[in-house]
Amino acid sequence: MSATYRVSGMTCGGCARSVESAIKAAAPEVETVTVDLEAGTVTVAGAVPQEVIAGAVEDAGFDCDGLVS
Amino acid sequence: MSATYRVSGMTCGGCARSVESAIKAAAPEVETVTVDLEAGTVTVAGAVPQEVIAGAVEDAGFDCDGLVS
Repeated sequence: MSATYRVSGMTCGGCARSVESAIKAAAPEVETVTVDLEAGTVTVAGAVPQEVIAGAVEDAGFDCDGLVS
Repeated sequence: MSATYRVSGMTCGGCARSVESAIKAAAPEVETVTVDLEAGTVTVAGAVPQEVIAGAVEDAGFDCDGLVS
């Protein structure tokens, strides 16, 4: 199970690493986090509630604009 | 009261904002967070234990290398 979120505000590899790390810290049950900087998306593999992902992204200073439909 | 930490891995304004946001999320009692990207330092105003700051920085995907002496 995986879900792809729109995340804005990521501009470099450091930002991407930050989002990945924040999600893993907030939800250790996440299997993988894949950031696509150009697309502005983050794909999370693992059964984690959407609000947990959104909260981690927002706490890390980026905007989570929901799921890519 | 303020303390200045060495933080490595920040390369752009998005990284700086991420560190600031992560610290404020982990320690709401923090008054201000000032990032100096070129120097690789983060100054935190407010009485917050060093390990709380370091933990927030590390969870956000950056390395906290302790206080600037």
